[in-house]
Amino acid sequence: MSGSEEFHQNHPASLICELCRLFYDNGWVTGTGGGISIRDVDGENPNIVYIAPSGIQKERLQPGEMFVAELPGTIIKTPNDENSLPLSKDLAANFKYKPLACTPLFLSCYNMRDAGACIHTHSQNAVMATLIWEDKVEFSMSHIEQIKALPQLELNDKTGKVEKVGSMQFYDTMVLPIIENTPHEEDLTDSLQEAIRKYPGATAVLVRRHGIYVWGETVWKAKVYNEAIDYLLELALKMHQNGIPLVKE
Amino acid sequence: MSGSEEFHQNHPASLICELCRLFYDNGWVTGTGGGISIRDVDGENPNIVYIAPSGIQKERLQPGEMFVAELPGTIIKTPNDENSLPLSKDLAANFKYKPLACTPLFLSCYNMRDAGACIHTHSQNAVMATLIWEDKVEFSMSHIEQIKALPQLELNDKTGKVEKVGSMQFYDTMVLPIIENTPHEEDLTDSLQEAIRKYPGATAVLVRRHGIYVWGETVWKAKVYNEAIDYLLELALKMHQNGIPLVKE
Amino acid sequence: MSGSEEFHQNHPASLICELCRLFYDNGWVTGTGGGISIRDVDGENPNIVYIAPSGIQKERLQPGEMFVAELPGTIIKTPNDENSLPLSKDLAANFKYKPLACTPLFLSCYNMRDAGACIHTHSQNAVMATLIWEDKVEFSMSHIEQIKALPQLELNDKTGKVEKVGSMQFYDTMVLPIIENTPHEEDLTDSLQEAIRKYPGATAVLVRRHGIYVWGETVWKAKVYNEAIDYLLELALKMHQNGIPLVKE
Amino acid sequence: MSGSEEFHQNHPASLICELCRLFYDNGWVTGTGGGISIRDVDGENPNIVYIAPSGIQKERLQPGEMFVAELPGTIIKTPNDENSLPLSKDLAANFKYKPLACTPLFLSCYNMRDAGACIHTHSQNAVMATLIWEDKVEFSMSHIEQIKALPQLELNDKTGKVEKVGSMQFYDTMVLPIIENTPHEEDLTDSLQEAIRKYPGATAVLVRRHGIYVWGETVWKAKVYNEAIDYLLELALKMHQNGIPLVKE
Repeated sequence: MSGSEEFHQNHPASLICELCRLFYDNGWVTGTGGGISIRDVDGENPNIVYIAPSGIQKERLQPGEMFVAELPGTIIKTPNDENSLPLSKDLAANFKYKPLACTPLFLSCYNMRDAGACIHTHSQNAVMATLIWEDKVEFSMSHIEQIKALPQLELNDKTGKVEKVGSMQFYDTMVLPIIENTPHEEDLTDSLQEAIRKYPGATAVLVRRHGIYVWGETVWKAKVYNEAIDYLLELALKMHQNGIPLVKE
Repeated sequence: MSGSEEFHQNHPASLICELCRLFYDNGWVTGTGGGISIRDVDGENPNIVYIAPSGIQKERLQPGEMFVAELPGTIIKTPNDENSLPLSKDLAANFKYKPLACTPLFLSCYNMRDAGACIHTHSQNAVMATLIWEDKVEFSMSHIEQIKALPQLELNDKTGKVEKVGSMQFYDTMVLPIIENTPHEEDLTDSLQEAIRKYPGATAVLVRRHGIYVWGETVWKAKVYNEAIDYLLELALKMHQNGIPLVKE
Repeated sequence: MSGSEEFHQNHPASLICELCRLFYDNGWVTGTGGGISIRDVDGENPNIVYIAPSGIQKERLQPGEMFVAELPGTIIKTPNDENSLPLSKDLAANFKYKPLACTPLFLSCYNMRDAGACIHTHSQNAVMATLIWEDKVEFSMSHIEQIKALPQLELNDKTGKVEKVGSMQFYDTMVLPIIENTPHEEDLTDSLQEAIRKYPGATAVLVRRHGIYVWGETVWKAKVYNEAIDYLLELALKMHQNGIPLVKE
Repeated sequence: MSGSEEFHQNHPASLICELCRLFYDNGWVTGTGGGISIRDVDGENPNIVYIAPSGIQKERLQPGEMFVAELPGTIIKTPNDENSLPLSKDLAANFKYKPLACTPLFLSCYNMRDAGACIHTHSQNAVMATLIWEDKVEFSMSHIEQIKALPQLELNDKTGKVEKVGSMQFYDTMVLPIIENTPHEEDLTDSLQEAIRKYPGATAVLVRRHGIYVWGETVWKAKVYNEAIDYLLELALKMHQNGIPLVKE
């Protein structure tokens, strides 16, 4: 996979670039923040995962700049391997690609939830929700139509796996765990995994003073869940400002 | 109508896609929320109505993915009928198109008000207005220039039809009914129809904790009314925040 | 000037379309609100003025759809004269172009201030400023760097004309008159003219519960003044919310 | 360098134009405000600096319209020298290019910090931060993930130079000096230089009631730092509104 190789627009590496530009425009991944990873669910080896590199402007990523891992977690290719010039417009002469610090977090979502894609943003709505409710370890909200865009998830006792059994209902309460941030992003792995286990109904985890991790069965589902949750978080901040409770009695 | 067939840019199916992208950028239809339906008022059969499917990313819709109904309400074509591949970029392998849950609501606007197009959004301005005035069943606002973009509607006693007799005036009070949300969108039909009957002067209905339905004589009129109402709702929230009454005495 | 005739991109009729799209994205002319007029200052007859029509979606305007007037105020061409099809995507079958209701206001700016272009928006920042300071007939603000983008205007006693003598300074106080809105836009003409006379230092007039009129020596100056004033109004609302006085003592 | 000469898209003059359009969309350089300067770090003479002109619409700049200086500070080329027509769409007939008033400020960053690019914006987040904390001469914030996008800077006692030794940590406190605005932008030079000397750990300086200056090793680093700081300032305003302290104890 050389830097100049053409990727089909539906290739996971291309989709990461497309979505990073979209997320940049939403203010979710500015300043090199955030990241995306997509699993090649339709490819020959569905255990192949493409991961955006760290410390690079997300909106300027090129498909040839991805890290490639094979689940459960071996990095099998890095953009530093290439003998071609980096495609990025980053002018740093000797740019050394580093895997996203949140790679172990992404891999946790793939391995524990059989996700097809994981999104991590620094959305201010997410950060503000963890600050306003700084004494809470969960974020809860109910009785808003947009909740219906989220999956109804249930733990299958036989298989031990969390399965999607439908969509959430208007009157359901969306509960997202909030974990505490750590100085090094990879150190979040344990508490993220604990939250994923403890909240089988959640398709996202908030990280205090940091942002949010969202995953889904496919890249498009992950995108839709992320959009719906961010919409709900934004609405929650406005409701709070107006003294309206987030969960209807 | 195969998936790969070309649609003229002014074809209702193309206009639905164009407007969905615009509404997505406004945050009105993110996370698969909201939807649009356009009646082929200039076509051979003006009772033909194009309707966006449900559960799909609105900003990625393609013209070949629409449901087609004939008024007063028979679905005559679905994108599942096609033998071509779906045009959507949705990666779900066996995506099954479902008609928008709000289809009976759209049809109510066509049949009761002879509308040319119906727009449904999850606009946060609409949702917040129904939350801040949660004890009210109407939203009222007056003495703002933008009100003049809305139609002056009157019930014609002879024909029993609501007719546009001009534009609202600066000093007029715009009154929009607010109906309560229901767990299933199709169950809104009765209360929406009741609101349409009870408020002959309204070209839109707010749905508590959900969003708004707006219609107009043509797709462009519906778009303009939707924009003007959203502008007014946004302004109303700012006025409320500053303690300014919405209706001038 | 037929509907299909090509206009150079710097032609006033083209620039009106370009700026309307930009202003639409800013939320200043949604729902058919607002409008622009440009004088052909570089053309053969600098008294020719191009004016956007009324009741049409500003972001979809085409150059062939403008009204043309000759100063001091004769309309010499209307898009209804054309034997070509309207270029607009407006689907109304028999669309009848009407001159902007604010045409006499635009002409006042041309005739009284020798303006090269006039912009009218329904900016929510402008409307909110007139609502928050509803008991005031002027809006004043000082000691913000952006004020330096505005012209220093002075009445020349010899010629009786208002002339630009430089730029405002950081410590200067920008004063914009606020006039009361009227049911019919053309009835604003008298009070707008009075405000223009009474405030020789102002390059804009706020209209209560309505919006703003801004003019300048050229279309680009008018655009820059409009941007700078909207920036200042937006900042003023935030300052007010935080209890910070707009004029520094 | 004639006006019609083609510039490679990675040429500093091209990048200034590209970034000005981006910053315009963010509301950072509207109304001719703000500006950018880029040093040709990869060129034949790395002391060559390209500077956007003053009083011109930043989003409409063309590469041929830049001023060129050689460090430590001689202007060696101005767009007025050209015998070609100005590329700008600015309709002013005899437009006379003026160097940005903040040129000596930009040069200070190059000479004192060996910067590769300097960005100056009128960001409302920056201005509001200096107004809300009007009695403070520093802005401080800690324990937000986005802080990690900023450089850890340290004064090297041997060389007397400030060097980047890594990235800031989550628990670090970002401290930005705030200097008072002056009527003439060039008069800010002394206090900016003093702030740069006094705050070796800062990669930006806030100017009260005016905006912000941000610099970095390369244009992309400067852009990333600017984005991260603006994100933090925006978040700080929301935290303040909700009574949340900016520095965690």
